Amino acid sequence: MKYPQGVRKQQSDSAQRSNEINYGQRGMTLEKDLDKTNQFYLDSKRAIIHKKPTPVQIVDVDYPSRKKAKITEAYFKVPSTSDYNGIYKGKYIDFEAKETRNKTRFPFINIHAHQVEHMRACHNQGGIVFIILKFTVHDEVYLYPFEHFVKHWDVFLADGRKSITYADIKNESILLPIKYNPRYDYLAAVDEFYFE
Amino acid sequence: MKYPQGVRKQQSDSAQRSNEINYGQRGMTLEKDLDKTNQFYLDSKRAIIHKKPTPVQIVDVDYPSRKKAKITEAYFKVPSTSDYNGIYKGKYIDFEAKETRNKTRFPFINIHAHQVEHMRACHNQGGIVFIILKFTVHDEVYLYPFEHFVKHWDVFLADGRKSITYADIKNESILLPIKYNPRYDYLAAVDEFYFE
Repeated sequence: MKYPQGVRKQQSDSAQRSNEINYGQRGMTLEKDLDKTNQFYLDSKRAIIHKKPTPVQIVDVDYPSRKKAKITEAYFKVPSTSDYNGIYKGKYIDFEAKETRNKTRFPFINIHAHQVEHMRACHNQGGIVFIILKFTVHDEVYLYPFEHFVKHWDVFLADGRKSITYADIKNESILLPIKYNPRYDYLAAVDEFYFE
Repeated sequence: MKYPQGVRKQQSDSAQRSNEINYGQRGMTLEKDLDKTNQFYLDSKRAIIHKKPTPVQIVDVDYPSRKKAKITEAYFKVPSTSDYNGIYKGKYIDFEAKETRNKTRFPFINIHAHQVEHMRACHNQGGIVFIILKFTVHDEVYLYPFEHFVKHWDVFLADGRKSITYADIKNESILLPIKYNPRYDYLAAVDEFYFE
């Protein structure tokens, strides 16, 4: 396992990037970019990773025809796991994707306690677990290994500190370069952190 | 990997079982039994396996209050993966659960082609993949390893034979004894088939 020592080189790539590509990127969300990335991995048989469907509590369904049941009352449920999982190089992969508009920190309000406990359990079972974290104002996307994230989370549980600084995240994460396809090649970062 | 040689011993357990417990079981579905089993595995830290939420295409949402958005129009989508996945002994686990009322065969109409292709891809990546198959009339639940299932599926694709016989499934599967908790200890069957 390698611990990234900072991301100065990639930072300049990123600055360059935001001038060059941002216009065409307008309106693309992190989720769509990850869907595209996962489809690329699937098509190229590199990994099988899917976003889980949004959990919904279905209350009422109409059957106007046999073919298409129409849900007429349903509510969003709080997810009990992280959003993405699958298999890569024979290993179980599990991650959550989060965006923040905050420039200087990642507030924990963005993440549910039981999602973190789910990730902790997967990590303890030997899975590869991380958070993909986008700072929208910086236009930067990081792969933040759970190993690092959880140290801050446990301070939060003990002392109530409600965020991780941008500087800590830069130090402890791998910046994902943006490309046409795969959009964010996060498995290259997984290789670097977990397999080298 | 061990290939089960038949299930005569368990068969008689099962016959006994249906006399003793069936009354109390009335109305319990396979899905609920598996939820209960997975919760037991989770609580005892044996594995982390969840059912994925039902995929739904959300068309319209009302916001009567800030607290609870109400989905007023949505439709069921065809799932693109199997229903259950997770991690056990560091390995990726992926399975689908199916019930049939047919006494003598499992008709392929119960399973979507792209679910099988998803399972094939997971199997090729080194995951542990199977189908949990309930014959409701016999009140029997089998763990059917994908390795065996897919041979029949490929005959189906080539020759159009539309089902697997009950006899073949009995020969190629592990019967899961029913217990109070975990209801169906399918990981014991995984141990037997994949780890011994």
